[in-house]
Amino acid sequence: MNLSLESAIKAWQEELGEDCVDIGTDSLSRIAEATFKIERRVLAILRPKDSGHVQACMRIANLYMVPVYVVSTGKNWGNGSSVPTQDECVVIHLGKMNTIKDFNEKLAYVTIEPGVTQGQLAEFLKEKQSDLWVDMTGAPPECSLIGNIMERGHGHSAYSNRVEHISGLSVVLPNGDIIESGFGKYPDALAAPVYPWGLGPSLDGLFTQSNLGIVTSLTMWLMPKPEVFECFYFLAAGEDGLEQVIDALQPLRLKGVIKSGLHIGNNYKAINTYGQYPWELAGGRTPLPEDVLKKLSKQTGCGDWNGSGALYGTRQQVADAKRQICFALKGKVKRLSFLTDFRLSIIKRFPKLLGYALKVDLVTLLPVMEAIYGLSKGIPSDIWMASVYWRKKQAPPAIKDPDHDRCGLIWYSPVAPLEGRHAVIISNEVKKIMLAFSFEPLIAVVFFSERALCCVISIVYDRDIPGEDDRAMQCHDDIIRRLAELGYYPYRLGVQNMSKLPEPSADYVKLIRKLKAALDPERILSPGRYEC
Amino acid sequence: MNLSLESAIKAWQEELGEDCVDIGTDSLSRIAEATFKIERRVLAILRPKDSGHVQACMRIANLYMVPVYVVSTGKNWGNGSSVPTQDECVVIHLGKMNTIKDFNEKLAYVTIEPGVTQGQLAEFLKEKQSDLWVDMTGAPPECSLIGNIMERGHGHSAYSNRVEHISGLSVVLPNGDIIESGFGKYPDALAAPVYPWGLGPSLDGLFTQSNLGIVTSLTMWLMPKPEVFECFYFLAAGEDGLEQVIDALQPLRLKGVIKSGLHIGNNYKAINTYGQYPWELAGGRTPLPEDVLKKLSKQTGCGDWNGSGALYGTRQQVADAKRQICFALKGKVKRLSFLTDFRLSIIKRFPKLLGYALKVDLVTLLPVMEAIYGLSKGIPSDIWMASVYWRKKQAPPAIKDPDHDRCGLIWYSPVAPLEGRHAVIISNEVKKIMLAFSFEPLIAVVFFSERALCCVISIVYDRDIPGEDDRAMQCHDDIIRRLAELGYYPYRLGVQNMSKLPEPSADYVKLIRKLKAALDPERILSPGRYEC
Repeated sequence: MNLSLESAIKAWQEELGEDCVDIGTDSLSRIAEATFKIERRVLAILRPKDSGHVQACMRIANLYMVPVYVVSTGKNWGNGSSVPTQDECVVIHLGKMNTIKDFNEKLAYVTIEPGVTQGQLAEFLKEKQSDLWVDMTGAPPECSLIGNIMERGHGHSAYSNRVEHISGLSVVLPNGDIIESGFGKYPDALAAPVYPWGLGPSLDGLFTQSNLGIVTSLTMWLMPKPEVFECFYFLAAGEDGLEQVIDALQPLRLKGVIKSGLHIGNNYKAINTYGQYPWELAGGRTPLPEDVLKKLSKQTGCGDWNGSGALYGTRQQVADAKRQICFALKGKVKRLSFLTDFRLSIIKRFPKLLGYALKVDLVTLLPVMEAIYGLSKGIPSDIWMASVYWRKKQAPPAIKDPDHDRCGLIWYSPVAPLEGRHAVIISNEVKKIMLAFSFEPLIAVVFFSERALCCVISIVYDRDIPGEDDRAMQCHDDIIRRLAELGYYPYRLGVQNMSKLPEPSADYVKLIRKLKAALDPERILSPGRYEC
Repeated sequence: MNLSLESAIKAWQEELGEDCVDIGTDSLSRIAEATFKIERRVLAILRPKDSGHVQACMRIANLYMVPVYVVSTGKNWGNGSSVPTQDECVVIHLGKMNTIKDFNEKLAYVTIEPGVTQGQLAEFLKEKQSDLWVDMTGAPPECSLIGNIMERGHGHSAYSNRVEHISGLSVVLPNGDIIESGFGKYPDALAAPVYPWGLGPSLDGLFTQSNLGIVTSLTMWLMPKPEVFECFYFLAAGEDGLEQVIDALQPLRLKGVIKSGLHIGNNYKAINTYGQYPWELAGGRTPLPEDVLKKLSKQTGCGDWNGSGALYGTRQQVADAKRQICFALKGKVKRLSFLTDFRLSIIKRFPKLLGYALKVDLVTLLPVMEAIYGLSKGIPSDIWMASVYWRKKQAPPAIKDPDHDRCGLIWYSPVAPLEGRHAVIISNEVKKIMLAFSFEPLIAVVFFSERALCCVISIVYDRDIPGEDDRAMQCHDDIIRRLAELGYYPYRLGVQNMSKLPEPSADYVKLIRKLKAALDPERILSPGRYEC
């Protein structure tokens, strides 16, 4: 350990208390694990308890010139988990800062710290008997909300574009200063939690996907529970089907008839969520043989593309939305169905019987259907965690730790205009590349907004098989390169691809460097993170 | 003229052409006029024709250290029009940059330059027989869209929060560099017009209400024409009525039943829009005597508070919204009515007859009702322009130029959480102050979003009356101070109040100064504009 690091650690121990500074060998090696191959030495882990602690962390880091990297709960699986973008960093882990600082039922918001998780907030609202719902991602209950929001993550509800439903950030700057964004710059401003823009230049965007500050709290807006809630599901055949469905539903999203983040997963993706790789059926071969894919598709009743979305509103609004969806999808999909609390309770009572009648394996399908249904109404689920154990030879353990269990998972998520043809182009390109690398093309198309779609691509493999780590990363790199050639760029990056995209325009790069130099001249905070 | 200015002007003339550099005495004195007293000497006016010109403007300004101030069309009445925040600036006027650069009907957007006006875009869409509507403010057709958007202005439609409906800014930086925000940093990115966030720190907010860059184009999203469109109107009595109405409608706004920016103007505001100050009835007295207010209220059929909003959706959605509004407002309002194209056409045919039956002066009301109705569906109107001639002794001229016609107008617009009690507190405080200064308390409460309201306060007076300029500004300053004491801050500023609010937190001020120093070390671009 070099001298300045030693001094820094001593100073952190003094300021934060020894329990907040972790230099245990095991902790340090665990926090450097991800779901793909990445070599980083982490020097220490700091676990501040409040924003004062975070300020102290930064002041000391600057004093001793020790670079730090910040995570909320660090469960950014597929994008590097807790692993820093640069070697030899100290990790600041914000998990201990998990206070729900404010709650307003009428104006529908909570003010939370970075350690507050999806599950914790859902529980809190339940305890309060609140009529508000939290937007949920497919990540399990123990994942940070702020961590995801600052990566501009998307959930499943009408508030799926999470970053557009926040206000009043508290941000510790690289030099240890602390600011409140929006109206919060005036300590007594009443509108700070409800009006994000404040007065003067709006800074919130600057602290998303960046290394310019550490968000230590923010106000997250919650969705009012609607009078009626239903989910809908449908199947589409082939790339033509996908294109038609997207083009049919886009006007409904634009008009606000559908408000949720619609998801359309391909057959591989569907089967991946239902269980592990069918090693026996496939005779040990990879990627999944065509005939096995067909057989499993038939068995689980999944289509080439499998869509789901949610409807929120009054009785009349939802009835009207259903009418419009039925009309728009007529002749374009199979098995369009709507799920309500009542219908779900019936299916749960007779899954075998109904499955027999419908000729699908409802016993297998039910937990996934139910999880999607729950997500859309603010109930988190850990059901998708099993899917990263897809290529493992053993069953997933009860307590899942994909980083440590050597699950292979690399994520990539290109954005395109909300038109069917773009989804088809991306899907076809990715499929070609992934199959050539012997990975299943696990692809979901997500309606990101009224005008944009996102393809969520997962490379899932087994890190215990020699050579797979490198092959998966090569596959990932090929996908990035090919999609960028076609004009498709991702909505977020991971530690694996912070510098794999083409260089942006020269003036843009200059600007980003100027901003970094102004706020963090010594490059102490998360060096290499989203720096163009 | 000093030497460096002379050289700068010569350089601008060479780069832009002589027709783009205006140093005529009359032009310079006209551009320094506003709707209140403000003394600024403008050194020259530059009228660039494209972003290359804007870059040249900035490079030359830096070379010769001549500060510049930027306006789009400069019609920021009530907040300083075209007048720079600092004395001895050159004004860059972007009115000549008025190209509509891109249009996409399916994905519902246009890409525009700062000189494109509300009226121009409305005309363009009409010519294209488009089914898209532009969000409109109450400003007349010849006002810039980008000018208003960059001030984070609000319109009347479901896209009223304009700054949340843009993407892909082109920005000339203070040093003359040019960047594209969002995905635009990659020249070939297909999602640039539809997904504003791009990748890495989001910079858009930084260029709103700021002096950190000049936006030379952006993509503005348009609203799809709904199947059904209706406006609704209602009256409420007293402050109790106002509070009840806001609290009754807030849940509907939160649930998305009402999507438009609802407006509730007080009796003074209503009468102000119907005609000029009733000098005769008032016997020359100001402020408007109570008995005259009552008389005119009765005559025009306006209430203490006069609400209007718009409904967009399918037949069923609008029917459902109407049902919910009627239920929510039951017993709380008078004369709740809904206006459709059909009903409007009937009223237009028989205004006198219907007015007689309803006991209101429909001949006077009709143009205002029709203008509000039109605004909400993307038709701009200049009807509100007359209201700034309120205290003038002569009728407004056919061609209105409030700056030059010595109309007195000062705007202020505090934001509060969307709860009735806040509107009442603000309204009462403002009323007390304004009446004490002998001005009519012209106040409108606007639903800004699901969670915030804004009070639009106008001080309207006659600049030709000696002493009124100073009295109006004193009144304005008192309002600012009192509302800030109570925790209410405005959503935008004007040249008259850039430095009248309390100082924000010290760390915040430091940050803003650092950003300015990094991007504009010589303080060439709009010095003093939104600098805390």
